[in-house]
Amino acid sequence: MGTNRFNYHTKTRKGDLVQLITGRDNSFIIKLERGKVFQSHHGVIQHDDLINLHWGSRIKTHLGKVFIVFQPALDDLIRAIPRTTQIIYPKDIGYIIVTMGIGPGSIILEAGTGSGALTTALAYVVGDNGKVISYEKEKKNIQNAQKNLTIFGLEKIVTFKNRDIADGFDETDIQAIFVDLPNPEDYCTQIRKALIPGGYFGCILPTTNQVSRLVTSLKKHNFSFIEASEILHRYYQTTATRFRPKDKMVSHTGYLVFARKTTKLSETVG
Amino acid sequence: MGTNRFNYHTKTRKGDLVQLITGRDNSFIIKLERGKVFQSHHGVIQHDDLINLHWGSRIKTHLGKVFIVFQPALDDLIRAIPRTTQIIYPKDIGYIIVTMGIGPGSIILEAGTGSGALTTALAYVVGDNGKVISYEKEKKNIQNAQKNLTIFGLEKIVTFKNRDIADGFDETDIQAIFVDLPNPEDYCTQIRKALIPGGYFGCILPTTNQVSRLVTSLKKHNFSFIEASEILHRYYQTTATRFRPKDKMVSHTGYLVFARKTTKLSETVG
Amino acid sequence: MGTNRFNYHTKTRKGDLVQLITGRDNSFIIKLERGKVFQSHHGVIQHDDLINLHWGSRIKTHLGKVFIVFQPALDDLIRAIPRTTQIIYPKDIGYIIVTMGIGPGSIILEAGTGSGALTTALAYVVGDNGKVISYEKEKKNIQNAQKNLTIFGLEKIVTFKNRDIADGFDETDIQAIFVDLPNPEDYCTQIRKALIPGGYFGCILPTTNQVSRLVTSLKKHNFSFIEASEILHRYYQTTATRFRPKDKMVSHTGYLVFARKTTKLSETVG
Amino acid sequence: MGTNRFNYHTKTRKGDLVQLITGRDNSFIIKLERGKVFQSHHGVIQHDDLINLHWGSRIKTHLGKVFIVFQPALDDLIRAIPRTTQIIYPKDIGYIIVTMGIGPGSIILEAGTGSGALTTALAYVVGDNGKVISYEKEKKNIQNAQKNLTIFGLEKIVTFKNRDIADGFDETDIQAIFVDLPNPEDYCTQIRKALIPGGYFGCILPTTNQVSRLVTSLKKHNFSFIEASEILHRYYQTTATRFRPKDKMVSHTGYLVFARKTTKLSETVG
Repeated sequence: MGTNRFNYHTKTRKGDLVQLITGRDNSFIIKLERGKVFQSHHGVIQHDDLINLHWGSRIKTHLGKVFIVFQPALDDLIRAIPRTTQIIYPKDIGYIIVTMGIGPGSIILEAGTGSGALTTALAYVVGDNGKVISYEKEKKNIQNAQKNLTIFGLEKIVTFKNRDIADGFDETDIQAIFVDLPNPEDYCTQIRKALIPGGYFGCILPTTNQVSRLVTSLKKHNFSFIEASEILHRYYQTTATRFRPKDKMVSHTGYLVFARKTTKLSETVG
Repeated sequence: MGTNRFNYHTKTRKGDLVQLITGRDNSFIIKLERGKVFQSHHGVIQHDDLINLHWGSRIKTHLGKVFIVFQPALDDLIRAIPRTTQIIYPKDIGYIIVTMGIGPGSIILEAGTGSGALTTALAYVVGDNGKVISYEKEKKNIQNAQKNLTIFGLEKIVTFKNRDIADGFDETDIQAIFVDLPNPEDYCTQIRKALIPGGYFGCILPTTNQVSRLVTSLKKHNFSFIEASEILHRYYQTTATRFRPKDKMVSHTGYLVFARKTTKLSETVG
Repeated sequence: MGTNRFNYHTKTRKGDLVQLITGRDNSFIIKLERGKVFQSHHGVIQHDDLINLHWGSRIKTHLGKVFIVFQPALDDLIRAIPRTTQIIYPKDIGYIIVTMGIGPGSIILEAGTGSGALTTALAYVVGDNGKVISYEKEKKNIQNAQKNLTIFGLEKIVTFKNRDIADGFDETDIQAIFVDLPNPEDYCTQIRKALIPGGYFGCILPTTNQVSRLVTSLKKHNFSFIEASEILHRYYQTTATRFRPKDKMVSHTGYLVFARKTTKLSETVG
Repeated sequence: MGTNRFNYHTKTRKGDLVQLITGRDNSFIIKLERGKVFQSHHGVIQHDDLINLHWGSRIKTHLGKVFIVFQPALDDLIRAIPRTTQIIYPKDIGYIIVTMGIGPGSIILEAGTGSGALTTALAYVVGDNGKVISYEKEKKNIQNAQKNLTIFGLEKIVTFKNRDIADGFDETDIQAIFVDLPNPEDYCTQIRKALIPGGYFGCILPTTNQVSRLVTSLKKHNFSFIEASEILHRYYQTTATRFRPKDKMVSHTGYLVFARKTTKLSETVG
């Protein structure tokens, strides 16, 4: 079934994306290729030895370190992306997807590729029948994102445009645009032009000052259903007889702002 | 393009899913059919008058109430589901999807259909190339969920099984199982049998006592990477010059627990 | 022992402050006086019948409603204050007291009496050997606060000044000033003049915009150790076998901002 | 004015408690004594050079490091206590004090001295007219707490009892008892005996399992107004143009549980 990224065979095969795990924060994601070698400071494993294993098998490096062989989930992919710029967290990505109605077959715009973490998540969610068009000024960021997408087999879903969105988007009647730039308030005109009426604008901003500026601009540009929120994710110790939150948590990633393009009565047919 | 739920034409058409909005918490989702009538306490609109409108148009009922015509997002669908049993929130659904690696083409199990809100979300995310198999003891819940899925055009993606999961699942080598029952700790054996090694177990539980019981059982049944957490979602007032959180918030929906099936060395090939 | 508000006798006496409780959110605080009558929609009780009871006794109104007779705690006093203006919460008051080092014998300034809730708390904490000097422009607010303080027996501890703090404070070398006004940034000069070096400035502000303005002003006026924070208080259901947070919570009361007056090298002796 | 801990003179004097600060998390609290020397890795200062300075003065060590000379607040004292056992946070202490009605002149019990941080806070708040009686099994903890209290000049307010509270308290008709032990549920009988009717029981517990056990015991022992909650404290960056929460926060200290002793009708006079 070419339209999904999941292996519904019980053993690893050439070309599979494989997660080698020794602990939650100590894992590697590789694509299995005949003759290749996986190297880390834990030791060496031949790719050939990783092919035709049952998922969940344990395998030792030449140094005797044990790895488990898993299929990676989206969360794992995102965590595996090298963090050259700001990261986006699963708690935020999940809410963005659900709120903006992004799913299999969606055609969406991203403004600001950045590290490519959100690009990866969006590509994963729209799938082979969908399309992510990602605008980015820095060529370096595009190259970096493309490299990661290729490892994950998602490269055909994403089209990059090495452009400043101040010059506008090529697309119109788009269902959803996510802006990952520090000054989304400067692009409300361009965003309105690209969106279908009722279409979703979304962004994540670290500071309250940015949100204030954006909200002002969104209202001036006739966006409606403006929603601002933040999501806090709190992990617990998983000791059954001493169940309690972990001592520390991430306190802040960013404020999520969403809005929908509505039309003035004068613009409408109905 | 039959593989997505989105309309990439600029006007409404017969068969489209349409959201009629007068306010965030005052919206209706209907499927446009020739000759039908939309009725609410705000007045009456002919479906025929809703076909061939630009998305985002405004239309008046016979009582003069104005509605905006939007394409619904997943969030809107979930909010529109009648809440016969406990609801699941977008903040939680989003995180569940990302953590369990559910995407276009996934084949997944749900234990406990309940109100069908999560079933809807899962069907939406796996799309026409995926499959959700939902086990539920109460026939009434299945019928109710099926009705909602049909409205949303997602009914072909979901297979219901009117069964107690104490009797086990028919499926094996499944990538992800979400359990929406109060006592998941009682079904760890059945869940292990159905999961592929490395596959994800997930559930949401309202009380700490339930989490303690589940964690004990998961460990006894050799699950690994057990993660427990909670997600808090805090909305802000969107007044730019007086930016601040809203006065009240939902304090608790449930604890999210995830785990992966790992194998003992004795079970493995590698 | 005249220096405390607590009754270390086991029975109620004339002049005691008494809390009559029928439920957490249904209580009355009265001062026992010979010949007086307590009246509520639950019925009537003679004060004389309330004198010489063991603390914790139960007594019935003429309508048969049962009340428990308790000594009120500070939290109870604050909850009993009629909320003519914005309220201040125990979670915030407690942190304010600890952070600003307010205790028995402290002499402190309050700018903005408001509802008098914080005034009450401060008077309670500094005690008979301390002093709270509260500045307030609105005569009506002062009268209202005085009435409450008198009921609680705290009236001698507080001195009110019916003045605008734009005109400055009369006092100098003050250890702590709490400002409960929407624009504290306008009074940094006046606050500096009244504080002892190292003395604490504190305030609570509902919006992020106000905090930004205040922080700018505090830095310009050479305050140091500026701290901004917020306190979230989350109640739990107290069912032992189903321990979990309550469904809703207060999401926001205000941002707490503290700073200390430091001196420039040129101002110092050392 | 012997009844407070605050210096209402503008210059430091012999015997004063002084906070030497080079940064929020880099401060020392010392008592000024003629002829003594303050030593740290930042260099040496003669106490004599610290006497008769204006509060807020800056002074250099022999290595040229600048310190500011402040009066410490309660928060500063607590932070300065060596953390041999679990610490208690200002956010929690403040709420404990307000909820339990502890103030100048209060006579209260503490069960479990531990590091003495809460003992210090309670002594500070009840002042010279109040009394804290602290029960502790470990002699070492008492000695350690006494040393800190002496530095802060609070030693006369606290009476230590080197005893297991399983053997009961000597006192009766007490207004408030705070238990800082892992198993408060085992002492409900002893606590009831010591409390005045209507008196407050309070404790802080790290795990949900402990709270469940305690709530069960409190109900069995006829306590009322049982309240369980947690307090989250979130710091913000104080950059006016980029106002936002800090990246990390303390996620959990403990669950606060309070209850009041009520009497059965059969026990009462009224």
